[in-house]
Amino acid sequence: MSEIDRMLAANEEWLGEFPGPVPVAPARKVAVVACMDSRMPLFGLLGLAVGDAHVLRNAGGLVTEDTLRSLAVSQHLLGTRSVVLVHHTDCGLNKATEEQFRAAVEEATGVRPPWPAGAFTDLDGDVRESIRRIREAPYLVTEEIRGTVYDVATGRLREVA
Amino acid sequence: MSEIDRMLAANEEWLGEFPGPVPVAPARKVAVVACMDSRMPLFGLLGLAVGDAHVLRNAGGLVTEDTLRSLAVSQHLLGTRSVVLVHHTDCGLNKATEEQFRAAVEEATGVRPPWPAGAFTDLDGDVRESIRRIREAPYLVTEEIRGTVYDVATGRLREVA
Repeated sequence: MSEIDRMLAANEEWLGEFPGPVPVAPARKVAVVACMDSRMPLFGLLGLAVGDAHVLRNAGGLVTEDTLRSLAVSQHLLGTRSVVLVHHTDCGLNKATEEQFRAAVEEATGVRPPWPAGAFTDLDGDVRESIRRIREAPYLVTEEIRGTVYDVATGRLREVA
Repeated sequence: MSEIDRMLAANEEWLGEFPGPVPVAPARKVAVVACMDSRMPLFGLLGLAVGDAHVLRNAGGLVTEDTLRSLAVSQHLLGTRSVVLVHHTDCGLNKATEEQFRAAVEEATGVRPPWPAGAFTDLDGDVRESIRRIREAPYLVTEEIRGTVYDVATGRLREVA
């Protein structure tokens, strides 16, 4: 039984907790933009209920073109107006370099990746840069945006000034 | 108090449930690629514990360039080898058209979006297309990939053949 088989089997248990259908538009009009890190159960750590908020996640919680596309869909088709960024301590992209990434991909596959990993050195600075990119996107209508860092050693969120 | 303030306050309650630190590399070597939809608490519906799996999410659960970048980071820097896709019923991108999206953005902001929303008409076909894109990426080393659709009315996951 593979790990994915185990996840599909676990879905049977979820059926007993399933809260029932809710509308497609997020009730609290918030989109969360976070890193894919395995240690961030965002519903739990932000106190979200099913139906409350969109959740966007990628490597690093970076604001990429795909993030902007997703936020535009979130805001213009589904009515969200706030964005909260959740970066975190001990991030793989804060510990590795672009050269390490390229070398690892090339060694395993023989191919050089066509894009950078998105490695960064300044955690708070990366949050501020992400805020700036969302604020400057002319096709968004964000009314509130806040940036945070999650401490994976303690479970605590810290707001980045 | 804004909705984001409420989320930051809710983090205080999470501290009582926080399971303690775990390693950065996902224990079950799986990356989940899912839609940003507000009705999918992936830790709950897949039975994930903190530290088990990477979670990638965007509008539609589409496999974009950013998804491939994130999967390359997940596999080559953090050791995952399986991918499970989670699309869902009642998706905003399955109900809207590109023309509706462009019109909504332009009406609200005066600007035309520089990219399509990623609207699709065939839910299962979109899952299969996503599987194909990941299988064909030469810089990935995926050992197992499965595609599912989550029913937001019942909480049940269905595997797409």
